[in-house]
Amino acid sequence: RIVDFPVSVVLPAGGTGERTGLQTPKQFCSFLGRPLISFTIQTFERVSWIQNIVVVVAKENMDMMMDIIQRFQHKKVQVIPGGSTRHRSICNGVMALGEEERSADDKPKVVIVHDAVRPFVEEDFLHKIAVAAKEQGAAGATRPLVSTVIATTSEGYLDHSLERAKYRASEMPQGFTYDVIYQAYQRCTESDLEFGTECLHLALQYCGTNAKLIEGPPTLWKVTYKRDLAAAESIIKEMLSQSTCLLTGESTPGVRSADVFQKAFGALDMKLDVIPDLMGDNARYLLKAWNFIQVSFHSSCLSEVEDILVALDATNQALLHPPIVIWVHLKRTDEKSMALAESATIMNLASTAKLRNILLYGIEVHGSEDTDRWERSAPKVAEMASALIRDRNPALVGQLLQA
Amino acid sequence: RIVDFPVSVVLPAGGTGERTGLQTPKQFCSFLGRPLISFTIQTFERVSWIQNIVVVVAKENMDMMMDIIQRFQHKKVQVIPGGSTRHRSICNGVMALGEEERSADDKPKVVIVHDAVRPFVEEDFLHKIAVAAKEQGAAGATRPLVSTVIATTSEGYLDHSLERAKYRASEMPQGFTYDVIYQAYQRCTESDLEFGTECLHLALQYCGTNAKLIEGPPTLWKVTYKRDLAAAESIIKEMLSQSTCLLTGESTPGVRSADVFQKAFGALDMKLDVIPDLMGDNARYLLKAWNFIQVSFHSSCLSEVEDILVALDATNQALLHPPIVIWVHLKRTDEKSMALAESATIMNLASTAKLRNILLYGIEVHGSEDTDRWERSAPKVAEMASALIRDRNPALVGQLLQA
Ligand SMILES: [Mg+2]
Ligand SMILES: [Mg+2]
Repeated sequence: RIVDFPVSVVLPAGGTGERTGLQTPKQFCSFLGRPLISFTIQTFERVSWIQNIVVVVAKENMDMMMDIIQRFQHKKVQVIPGGSTRHRSICNGVMALGEEERSADDKPKVVIVHDAVRPFVEEDFLHKIAVAAKEQGAAGATRPLVSTVIATTSEGYLDHSLERAKYRASEMPQGFTYDVIYQAYQRCTESDLEFGTECLHLALQYCGTNAKLIEGPPTLWKVTYKRDLAAAESIIKEMLSQSTCLLTGESTPGVRSADVFQKAFGALDMKLDVIPDLMGDNARYLLKAWNFIQVSFHSSCLSEVEDILVALDATNQALLHPPIVIWVHLKRTDEKSMALAESATIMNLASTAKLRNILLYGIEVHGSEDTDRWERSAPKVAEMASALIRDRNPALVGQLLQA
Repeated sequence: RIVDFPVSVVLPAGGTGERTGLQTPKQFCSFLGRPLISFTIQTFERVSWIQNIVVVVAKENMDMMMDIIQRFQHKKVQVIPGGSTRHRSICNGVMALGEEERSADDKPKVVIVHDAVRPFVEEDFLHKIAVAAKEQGAAGATRPLVSTVIATTSEGYLDHSLERAKYRASEMPQGFTYDVIYQAYQRCTESDLEFGTECLHLALQYCGTNAKLIEGPPTLWKVTYKRDLAAAESIIKEMLSQSTCLLTGESTPGVRSADVFQKAFGALDMKLDVIPDLMGDNARYLLKAWNFIQVSFHSSCLSEVEDILVALDATNQALLHPPIVIWVHLKRTDEKSMALAESATIMNLASTAKLRNILLYGIEVHGSEDTDRWERSAPKVAEMASALIRDRNPALVGQLLQA
């Protein structure tokens, strides 16, 4: 789905986030080592037909925001200072898009306004909003009401309840032709800028544009409370858990172990892509998978793991999310004496990898000389590896766990 | 705060939970090994002035519900079959409270209606609702609207937006005198029972009772989507992380280590209660704390840990949430050879403890003969212990981690 007209995004991120119960405004709260707003920017950045993203932040957060842009290597982003209210901030963003130094061609046809704290909006839905906005002048996302809406008397008693089916909750994103949103902000009053919240309302009142309303998916939800940060983190972790590579090497026992592990992980609803290594065509998994499990029958060394770490580091993927590497070492019973040296080696590797946002763990399986024996451990390996992958816990890197 | 009149609760739990995107209705989804509805029941059960709780479930879930009541040893609960709609289910619950076998004294003065999927309601707020219901005939929780509410034209365009300040979202709990809710359900129509959702509305329409509206805290929120289950889990885990006991024994090095660990955990915002053991008066911590860290300078044995496990098991606390026990072993450098035996011992203990819902982990610190050396490891111990406590991950029990 291509959009053949220029689209820009205004992302007001000036809120103070009192409702989260956290000191940091919620758009700057981090999970998996990255602030929420960076996840939202990433969402827009990867939509090919979006030309640029204007992030509007409070003056005192300009430096922090510039730092985030640089650290996570965001593209297409312009950061500008916000106003004292949400409307003033959005207005600043719209005006920045119209500045004279832009050529006429460069001026967006459609402006999408979104919230910095709704990171999960999907390209498909943005497409619907952009197209409807171009056609109708304005378009906005809605959701069904979750609760009954009631009117209260001035004394705090129930006056009446609204018929739920006739109303919707107005959500983000919203889209406007540049002309509509520009004129709306030109014509609206100081009181609108000070107390209003709803851009659709300005478009209606000052441009006579009845916005097209489009019901969005539940993923449009807004990170409002502290609990929502936990929910957002769990969604990202769940997504990252979906793509795991099992690297077996080319040795016969390695290749044979693939079936055993696929079955064990399958029982936990985890699908594995099995490859010998990341050479040649398989290098593409470096950009597709977020989890790598290296099966090893050698006591010798962690060189295969080192190769994965080097290759991952070269991709820059770890900038966005922490990839996980798990070394599953099937040892012979007589290899016990190696334990301490291995333990130190993996701990050192893991410390270095962690500095580059790659999380490395080890799992030892005993009795590799006896196929029946180690195969009995496979479900335990899968249980632990799956837990490490789902939790992505940086405090446990470098540990050599026992299956 | 005492309530000097009889109060009962009706908990409709018949929903099918389509919105979570899960197969199991959301009230039966589990986290930390326990279904959501059991958390909600527990909330009401521990309020001394609530006499009984009627849980209304779909016929096909009666057996499962009875099993939950038994497994988690819930008290004061009656399970009855629901109707085809929410109102019919609540109506069944109200009728069950009025059945003839009850004496007049036993009939509740006030009935609180709540949702099975709002586990975090607090006693204080229930008190407000109960008292207001007794005084006014009906009372209901509200929350400010999160989004602007808009009316749509029949073609799907914006008609107008409501002035947010005049409206509220109607939430749960709601309270009614028995007479009001009973009469409301006696007098309402089949169409109300079939299509209505709001008890406050029936009380107004059929009894002329304008409910008192009371703004509730954000914790009243309803577990609706899959992400809300993650949020609920994080809230419970956070709560359980707040109470950690450090057991040091009575030896001089143990007692001295307390300062070091308190400082290291303090840097991670974790407060420790330090006690030598759980003997005598300190046995009260078994009912107060959810996390126990045993510091040990002996290579000999895990007997102190075994004592904790036995004592915890005797309290039945593990029925409600999984307590965590962490063995922190400060070893001398010459004790390396013990590693394998210890590893097997803690794994066995942990497997047995897990069957009783107690999660046991180990952390080894090397160089206990050199105070400077092991003290440098304290931040790492605290980081790992804090991660284990916050994650409560059953897949990693029995591991002997290296600090
Ligand atoms: Mg309701
Ligand atoms: Mg809004």
